Amino acid sequence: MRIDVDAGLIEQYVRELARHGAHGETGVWRTAYSPEWLAAQEQVAAWYAEAGLEVRRDAVGNVWGRLAGEQAGPVIASGSHIDSQTPGGRYDGALGVIGALAALRTLHERFGRPRCTLEAVSLCEEEASRFHAANFWGSRAITKSIAPGEPERILDFDGVSIAAAMRAVGLDPERVPDAGRHDIETWIELHIEQGPVLEAAGLQVGVVDAITGIRHYVVELVGRSDHAGARPMEGRLDPMAGFAEIVSAVIGVALEMGPPAVTTVGRVHVEPNLPGAVPDRVVFTVDSRHPDPQTLAGQHAQQEQLMRAIAERRGLEISWSTPLDLPPCLCDSGVVAALERAGREQDVPFRRMHSGAGHDTQNMARIAKVAMVFARSEGGRSHTPAEFTSVDDAAAATRVLAAALHELAY
Amino acid sequence: MRIDVDAGLIEQYVRELARHGAHGETGVWRTAYSPEWLAAQEQVAAWYAEAGLEVRRDAVGNVWGRLAGEQAGPVIASGSHIDSQTPGGRYDGALGVIGALAALRTLHERFGRPRCTLEAVSLCEEEASRFHAANFWGSRAITKSIAPGEPERILDFDGVSIAAAMRAVGLDPERVPDAGRHDIETWIELHIEQGPVLEAAGLQVGVVDAITGIRHYVVELVGRSDHAGARPMEGRLDPMAGFAEIVSAVIGVALEMGPPAVTTVGRVHVEPNLPGAVPDRVVFTVDSRHPDPQTLAGQHAQQEQLMRAIAERRGLEISWSTPLDLPPCLCDSGVVAALERAGREQDVPFRRMHSGAGHDTQNMARIAKVAMVFARSEGGRSHTPAEFTSVDDAAAATRVLAAALHELAY
Repeated sequence: MRIDVDAGLIEQYVRELARHGAHGETGVWRTAYSPEWLAAQEQVAAWYAEAGLEVRRDAVGNVWGRLAGEQAGPVIASGSHIDSQTPGGRYDGALGVIGALAALRTLHERFGRPRCTLEAVSLCEEEASRFHAANFWGSRAITKSIAPGEPERILDFDGVSIAAAMRAVGLDPERVPDAGRHDIETWIELHIEQGPVLEAAGLQVGVVDAITGIRHYVVELVGRSDHAGARPMEGRLDPMAGFAEIVSAVIGVALEMGPPAVTTVGRVHVEPNLPGAVPDRVVFTVDSRHPDPQTLAGQHAQQEQLMRAIAERRGLEISWSTPLDLPPCLCDSGVVAALERAGREQDVPFRRMHSGAGHDTQNMARIAKVAMVFARSEGGRSHTPAEFTSVDDAAAATRVLAAALHELAY
Repeated sequence: MRIDVDAGLIEQYVRELARHGAHGETGVWRTAYSPEWLAAQEQVAAWYAEAGLEVRRDAVGNVWGRLAGEQAGPVIASGSHIDSQTPGGRYDGALGVIGALAALRTLHERFGRPRCTLEAVSLCEEEASRFHAANFWGSRAITKSIAPGEPERILDFDGVSIAAAMRAVGLDPERVPDAGRHDIETWIELHIEQGPVLEAAGLQVGVVDAITGIRHYVVELVGRSDHAGARPMEGRLDPMAGFAEIVSAVIGVALEMGPPAVTTVGRVHVEPNLPGAVPDRVVFTVDSRHPDPQTLAGQHAQQEQLMRAIAERRGLEISWSTPLDLPPCLCDSGVVAALERAGREQDVPFRRMHSGAGHDTQNMARIAKVAMVFARSEGGRSHTPAEFTSVDDAAAATRVLAAALHELAY
């Protein structure tokens, strides 16, 4: 049975949501608990109500829209996050919020009350773009994975705690545990792909069967600052030269392993960062990912060994922490199969694939059977105002989501 | 004839001058035309007067102390700069101001009026630590190398023009040309070595016969930002990977050429500089030095060729400017010989050497016969509060300077 969704409505939702925190022509700058974030969540709540959903705001500011089923019992939920990179685009996160809303609205209008309760959710925070240590705040609250004291401990770049930011929008950080859920049985997140795989294959939609494991190393390499002219090359302890060798080495590991291994050095901080001085200290990140748990462990071991060996040979001190360390997440085969059936039934060109990016779905997997639907990203761009997903592709992904929810809930 | 200098007085000068702009235990933060700079120049003027020198402030704020000779005619001058890195130590620049002051005071006290006029000078600016494009401001004014309009054009990091900063300390930027001199025949600058060569050789003093050529490249490498997980390795245009390869290559050129070639990458700016994103853009400096003009040209050509080739192979856009491009400066053989005679006569352990750092002396060479005297630096450190030169080494270098000035002026 073909399930149509109103593509014009999806386009309108995207455009109107992007007004909150608009940045330049096409960008969005909407960090957790900011005034523009608050306005965006109010907008979503209004749209939920308009679609006939029962609106509820939980203790961390996730906004829920509920379509109560005929049977009491476990819930099937779908959604994504409302916060953005700084700046980000208008699709990352937002399209999953809009897709779940449009799917439930469509199902409600066409099929009425479901057998199982359906819920749509706009999660408060995923990107860690304001609070570096807070990513997945929304799904961590739902899955009771926020430790006591964390709200007061986690600070934004201006030193404001997430607890203070919550209070500023009327939320009580003491009540974080109240956001926990135990009744969600199935979770499906729609999201833009953020990569070029679907575009390269000429497909609109991806059904995600695994989410990559991600480790972020923050590496500190310490040498000795010297005058760039007065200190001969011999005897230098140059952390920049060591850094360069490490970048080539860790990226080389991913290249040698081949797809889907990826490794990125995206952030560097140099001290004193002067043209005429050998640096004292280079601090940088290494982001290393693979969707297979065993392969990922080997990749990390090889990269750590190379970093240590390079530093030692050059007489540099090296140390690192891993502030982000997410194991790969395998999706539920039943939910994946339902999405594949939906794709075929709706005649949407799709493929199974893994996600190279991390998602709230990884956390939801602690309490529910999960899977994801990807919509094609133009040029594979994301985390930039330039990210773009066509209305057609957004509607196709929403139809696959709606059809799967229909099979599972009606 | 042995010329003694008062080591205790030198020590006292160093300690008292370091109070102006004191930074932490041993550091100095004294940028051009700041209140602490003004206080330091007033202090030097008072010491000049105390030593029996005629004090004069020129149009850019260089402070001069003159010991008029019996003969009218060309002047023999010595000095260095009063400004510091941010933060720097208490010796870079300052010790040359103090050394010239102590030498003239000693000669005046012991030998009275010279045949030729002697001048000591405390130059206003050398480090470009406040006005990035203004280095050698003092010696450029003396050698009439400041272009009309420059004072209004050159800004500090807060957007204040050097003209405005001059006005704020009572100087008229319109009068910059008045600081020009045409009567200086000989220039000798005493300075700390800033490198480890003298320490490694167990020598107190260096007689400098050449100053290295220096080119600063500011290189921009542009690729395409992508999600660190969703974009496979293949197809990335990663300027960080290209940057790493370039750092290894340009440093490799200096290593392969051997001493005294040096190359340093000291400053990097990455956009967007996020752990989870392939960067769009990496901007970095390459500082490449050699004291031999022909060898330096070959070194630069080889480094440029490698940078272009690496960028091209990786599909990255590359471009660069060279905001600093100082040719090597050969010192005057007669002045060098006078300093060597002085070193032997004073029984100071010394060697001839080149300077790997740039100095005001490079500019003074446009109008005068020049050479330099280096004092040993502990651990070769400079441009840091940790820089240190012992009172003994400072006194030894001052004795060599004083003896050479005695030979030339009396």
